[in-house]
Amino acid sequence: MTELAYINGKILPIKDAVVSIEDRGYQFGDAVYEFIASYDGKMFWLEAHLDRLIRSMSELSFPVISRSFLKDEIYRLYDKADISRAGIYIQISRGIAKRNHAFGNKMVPQLVMTIRPVSEVSPALKENGVKVITMEDFRWGRCDIKTVQLLPNVLAKQKAVKAGVYDTIFISREKIVREASSSNLFAVIGNKIFTHPLTRHILEGITRKVIFEICGRLNYEIEERFFDLDLLYGAKEVFLSGTVTEILPVIKIDDKFVGKGQPGPKARAIFKALRACTKDS
Amino acid sequence: MTELAYINGKILPIKDAVVSIEDRGYQFGDAVYEFIASYDGKMFWLEAHLDRLIRSMSELSFPVISRSFLKDEIYRLYDKADISRAGIYIQISRGIAKRNHAFGNKMVPQLVMTIRPVSEVSPALKENGVKVITMEDFRWGRCDIKTVQLLPNVLAKQKAVKAGVYDTIFISREKIVREASSSNLFAVIGNKIFTHPLTRHILEGITRKVIFEICGRLNYEIEERFFDLDLLYGAKEVFLSGTVTEILPVIKIDDKFVGKGQPGPKARAIFKALRACTKDS
Repeated sequence: MTELAYINGKILPIKDAVVSIEDRGYQFGDAVYEFIASYDGKMFWLEAHLDRLIRSMSELSFPVISRSFLKDEIYRLYDKADISRAGIYIQISRGIAKRNHAFGNKMVPQLVMTIRPVSEVSPALKENGVKVITMEDFRWGRCDIKTVQLLPNVLAKQKAVKAGVYDTIFISREKIVREASSSNLFAVIGNKIFTHPLTRHILEGITRKVIFEICGRLNYEIEERFFDLDLLYGAKEVFLSGTVTEILPVIKIDDKFVGKGQPGPKARAIFKALRACTKDS
Repeated sequence: MTELAYINGKILPIKDAVVSIEDRGYQFGDAVYEFIASYDGKMFWLEAHLDRLIRSMSELSFPVISRSFLKDEIYRLYDKADISRAGIYIQISRGIAKRNHAFGNKMVPQLVMTIRPVSEVSPALKENGVKVITMEDFRWGRCDIKTVQLLPNVLAKQKAVKAGVYDTIFISREKIVREASSSNLFAVIGNKIFTHPLTRHILEGITRKVIFEICGRLNYEIEERFFDLDLLYGAKEVFLSGTVTEILPVIKIDDKFVGKGQPGPKARAIFKALRACTKDS
């Protein structure tokens, strides 16, 4: 088991992995990324992550990198590292060039990866739930693309840490509930589960997709729908979802408890079903 | 005359200048920057750039780097490169750490610079003016901080290039005219010069500051004021300002000519005065 980095075909220790200061990822945040996790030595939802990565590059007019090449290189790093519960971070920047906002058509995308054991969210938090705060969404208008334009997410997460809570939920100017700093949000309102529709203001999480499948199997009514902060405060259950987050119940939002201030049955059942997915294939 | 890079005290060729892939500037866009130009071997408005750089770091809770240290290091690189009309790019990231949105209090900021001859805007464009298009402002909510969250600016500039024009002007949802992809905007409406007030939606340009001083000397009435796209379309003169842009007249916006479709007298007079500033000290 070894933590490793990968740069354009070369595998090396993370501490030795460097990129040019004129990589556009560094000077413009002109880069996309993915984070994939393995369970018991098997990578999960790799195809869905590749779909999204390829879409991100396409939306930003990056030169095409073939899916099979990406997949081969990810596996090459993964096999070499041999980490059973691994987190694989994949970043692709547009390329290296003398600093200039506009880019030509001769860019050579830079493929960078790291692999390490997953930094788990503590089991106690997954069991007992977390507290969150809210703030106005001040991110850019293309949150549907998984880019490294992450400074607002960094500042939101830091704000939560400073407030002694787990995370911050972004709320639009019109008080619509978007998502957390690096996870999607679901709320049980009445007998339905609501989550923000796929617009340019949220990322389509892979775990979010899996939750829709799970809800189908569990006969839970789930709906993509705009809902506001007042509805969120009154929800019976609230939970976050993400690759590392998995399913994380929210028990307090700002100064208001969610339901009885304890994780709810739907979040628990979905979490159980999600973990089961990682066993049975 | 040599193009050079600087990384944390070390001066080296730009092609050899590298940073860790776990520099937060690379993975989160967690970095601020400045661009300073020299004329005839003298750096201009350095103190104003340092003021803004220090403010940017402070707004993002970066550890403090002393002003005198920054100034000494900038001069050390500048003197070594010995480029008469130089562009000095200065980027400071929060530091290097294992990827995690939240940051601790042990970050060591990374100071990176490059120096090269300025890539001038062509004198013909400065003389004859440029065409621009407009698009909805989709940048994040802290454009007052000079960070590398620049992907929307990149996409806006690229959109202009594709349309065969010089740049794109960001317009808010309420149709308020903000600024261009990397310069401030001024419009002569009636007998006054209007420019967007200093909110979180525009950057306080150094050249913008100088223009206020120049307008005082020239007895031009200048006002910070919100104005919408319709007023912009009807303006007598429009011009952009920036460190490399200097003063750049805009002669066409979308499909509408500005005034008679030629650079106006106020833009010319302000440009002349700006260039004079770079001679007389």
